Amino acid sequence: MKKTDVVRAILADRQHLLPCNTEAEAYASSNIALCKYWGKRNTELNLPMTSSFSISLGNFGSNIRLSVNENVADTACINDQLLDWQSSFGKRLREFLNLFRITPTLGFHADIHTNIPIGAGLASSACGFASLVQALDRLFGWELSLLELSILARLGSGSASRSLWQGFVEWHAGTQADGMDSYAEVCTDVWPDLCIGLLILSDTEKKISSRVAMQRTVATSPFYTAWPETVRHDLSAIKQAVREKDFLLLGKTAESNALSMHATMLSSWPPVLYALPGTVTAMQKIWELRQAGLMVFFTQDAGPNLKLLFLAKDKAHMKTHFPNMPIIQPFINE
Amino acid sequence: MKKTDVVRAILADRQHLLPCNTEAEAYASSNIALCKYWGKRNTELNLPMTSSFSISLGNFGSNIRLSVNENVADTACINDQLLDWQSSFGKRLREFLNLFRITPTLGFHADIHTNIPIGAGLASSACGFASLVQALDRLFGWELSLLELSILARLGSGSASRSLWQGFVEWHAGTQADGMDSYAEVCTDVWPDLCIGLLILSDTEKKISSRVAMQRTVATSPFYTAWPETVRHDLSAIKQAVREKDFLLLGKTAESNALSMHATMLSSWPPVLYALPGTVTAMQKIWELRQAGLMVFFTQDAGPNLKLLFLAKDKAHMKTHFPNMPIIQPFINE
Repeated sequence: MKKTDVVRAILADRQHLLPCNTEAEAYASSNIALCKYWGKRNTELNLPMTSSFSISLGNFGSNIRLSVNENVADTACINDQLLDWQSSFGKRLREFLNLFRITPTLGFHADIHTNIPIGAGLASSACGFASLVQALDRLFGWELSLLELSILARLGSGSASRSLWQGFVEWHAGTQADGMDSYAEVCTDVWPDLCIGLLILSDTEKKISSRVAMQRTVATSPFYTAWPETVRHDLSAIKQAVREKDFLLLGKTAESNALSMHATMLSSWPPVLYALPGTVTAMQKIWELRQAGLMVFFTQDAGPNLKLLFLAKDKAHMKTHFPNMPIIQPFINE
Repeated sequence: MKKTDVVRAILADRQHLLPCNTEAEAYASSNIALCKYWGKRNTELNLPMTSSFSISLGNFGSNIRLSVNENVADTACINDQLLDWQSSFGKRLREFLNLFRITPTLGFHADIHTNIPIGAGLASSACGFASLVQALDRLFGWELSLLELSILARLGSGSASRSLWQGFVEWHAGTQADGMDSYAEVCTDVWPDLCIGLLILSDTEKKISSRVAMQRTVATSPFYTAWPETVRHDLSAIKQAVREKDFLLLGKTAESNALSMHATMLSSWPPVLYALPGTVTAMQKIWELRQAGLMVFFTQDAGPNLKLLFLAKDKAHMKTHFPNMPIIQPFINE
């Protein structure tokens, strides 16, 4: 089964329509997984081995203005810089746009503005593809459900399936071969006191992409067989923590889940280590603060940066320890 | 079963003899495991979950001069500094000496000289207890076999069981409850070209002892169940590499085995991370050198320091990259 089959199935009778607008705009928040997505059961369709659970990052994300022109070559700008179609993100973006090109002569122009570093493990592709599918929906006038858009976003980037909503989101692994049951859904629980700190230690593009690291882990880590069971346990604990507003359970489980994911990479061959020296320094600082009584936990994605979890009551305290760190309260509009 | 039961069984009729000398001396090399010992099946007797395989560190080790005096309190000096019996190593040493105290009035004096940092993951207790059992054997005139001494050394520190020989040593996990089949044996293969570099990044005592980290890993890591199978695979590969002088296989397996051990710690709760920022910098440097064609691998024990594995032909090259690093050729007398 190919991506085009999935697109055809979802768009059904809509697929032969031409764009009903010449331009459309959309915004999607980045999201960070509190229970991680690591490893695919199908690399073509980005079908995950396990379900995952995330929190959106509010104003941190990606805005896209998408337009079409007949007989004009594709162009894309990211933060006003022309995108090289030969770059890693350029290739992925073009491959994705091709899925929706009705006629070979249809040209797309994408004008992307993002306020998060690209390729640094801050889910730039998650919000990028999530905003793109929404812009495509508006451009073509499909009026697809968010659930259907979640499936389309997944074809661009797994974690993009979670970036269509604000707040807590669960992406169901699903079991079907065509992935029609592998989509994300928003969770109705809200937690206004929850704060996320973005501890950016490096904003340069990582040397090993998430998809390469993921494939290597599944193929070579002796511990990967235990990962799905770890996720089942952690996902259940995190959902309970969210329901009961049990911050200790949330923080502990999210931190442990992230470290276990990095443990699977460390045991792969060749080894994958996303930590920089500064990551280790920051981890030690967080553990020391916690031992001193400050309830702060971290999570880490496929990059060197940490995302800190704490409650609003400790915001002032956290600002003294991490003065330049952007802080997000996903459930408070600022 | 207690340590005293094992001592009684091994010393058999010898146990009632008084020391036949007033003073004895012994030296033992430190050793580093190429296939790690991590996790105990019996904490009282230091019986390991898996077998392990090590290489001795030649002139890096511990010398002990042990004497006895009636009616004189125990004293010990390490590098001419009086040992505090309330310190962590002090308590372990005293507990061990008590196993061999024939009469309550018998006092020991241990004068230890070691040229490796203590408690920094450089197997200081391995060579400490290995030299001590040899000194006890000479002091009491037991004339035990190295195999029996290996069992006694294990009661002080698991990895001490491997420090009675030079070269490659295998410590058999054994299956018996009394641990009488859990001893080390020297491997007859020699490899004169093999070099070990000691990349000391910190010589301060680590915050979490190996035994605490080990117990926490066995109790909480979701990946520990896969560790014994990983060791079985790695041990077999390392023994093959030693037999066939296949340096790539040796280096790759040793590095992967060490990283997998650290992965089990990272996935424990609370997490255990022995790496310092400098450890990460050094790992990245080693991976870069290897990508550039220099065949160097590392192993890491329960501490921040790395031990580098390379061949004699690359010694000059290694010295330019790591100018202050002590280099050992375990099979060459220097």
